[in-house]
Amino acid sequence: MQDIMIVGVAGGSGSGKTTLTKKLVERFGDAICVVHHDNYYRAHDDLTYEERTHLNYDCPDSFETEMMVEHLRLLRMGRSVHCPVYDYTVHNRSSETVLIEPRPVILVEGILIFAEPALVDQMDIKIFVDTDADIRLCRRVVRDVRDRARTVENVTKQWQDTVKPMHEMYVEPSKKYADIIVPEGGKNKVALDMIMGCIERHLRNTQES
Amino acid sequence: MQDIMIVGVAGGSGSGKTTLTKKLVERFGDAICVVHHDNYYRAHDDLTYEERTHLNYDCPDSFETEMMVEHLRLLRMGRSVHCPVYDYTVHNRSSETVLIEPRPVILVEGILIFAEPALVDQMDIKIFVDTDADIRLCRRVVRDVRDRARTVENVTKQWQDTVKPMHEMYVEPSKKYADIIVPEGGKNKVALDMIMGCIERHLRNTQES
Repeated sequence: MQDIMIVGVAGGSGSGKTTLTKKLVERFGDAICVVHHDNYYRAHDDLTYEERTHLNYDCPDSFETEMMVEHLRLLRMGRSVHCPVYDYTVHNRSSETVLIEPRPVILVEGILIFAEPALVDQMDIKIFVDTDADIRLCRRVVRDVRDRARTVENVTKQWQDTVKPMHEMYVEPSKKYADIIVPEGGKNKVALDMIMGCIERHLRNTQES
Repeated sequence: MQDIMIVGVAGGSGSGKTTLTKKLVERFGDAICVVHHDNYYRAHDDLTYEERTHLNYDCPDSFETEMMVEHLRLLRMGRSVHCPVYDYTVHNRSSETVLIEPRPVILVEGILIFAEPALVDQMDIKIFVDTDADIRLCRRVVRDVRDRARTVENVTKQWQDTVKPMHEMYVEPSKKYADIIVPEGGKNKVALDMIMGCIERHLRNTQES
């Protein structure tokens, strides 16, 4: 049990969580696996596409967090899990799953992971990536228009209707649970070096024991 | 020059900077020296005690920062410095000085050190200790009444008149310059381990080269 370290990376939409996560994966390769909260968005096969577009995707209830908690518990015990996959183009869980195998370091990534006490309890290290709201919006607009077939009007409306109010209600207060707060995420070299040093020590201790 | 690492520890009054600093000194002993911004409060021999009690001690101008910058420059070059000493009981610089000898790690500690670009430029690692204002006030009242012969009325008046507005004007915005933000300072074990790991790596590299 002690050989596996679970590291949470939280932060608002567009904060730089993904950049930080990618750099850790590049550096540690097979020693790390990543579990994305987004993949645990609830399935809504009962609703039409139109109905699904009107759901609030920025509150804790929109995730099947209990399944993710169970998956982390299994991974920590050294068991593989079949992680669901979310399809943004249809706003629904896809029929595929992805096999995640246990690694010495399990990275848990998501906007709302520190807003869920059951998830927080699973984490050994909690990192919150903190970036100004306007900078986060810049990144979100570019990403959603380019990669998720959204319009600028649609993205900025969603930002004002749900992303911003839910950020202020759930994400900002969840920062309190972080062990460290990293301004500007993956571009912050000093913080990245500290986090990598911490993971290196864990891997060294794991190999020695 | 590369062998000396300057680490800044900033944060509001009562945030836990001193606890963090003490733990680093306990852990690294002679490998560390500490330079406190507070010791560079300007001398005011030209004013009476009564006049000195009415000065604003919570803005960047109240420090002789240019002397501190020069001292850090000398320490980084491997030279010793005579650091001034501030006497809180008389609100003035004392006639003593303290000899600070250069060490592989120089810790710079103070509320306003990130509000001074010339100081920020000297630092290799910038740590901001972030604690809620009410918790900081609790600690400040206890400390000032017990150790600095102040009354509760005097401390809470100063908090409202200058500490709080100056915090919001200078300290809070200076958080932007931090490489990492540490909630709750010296009591945060995960962050402390990361910072210690980073200093250990520096000391190891210094010894090897």
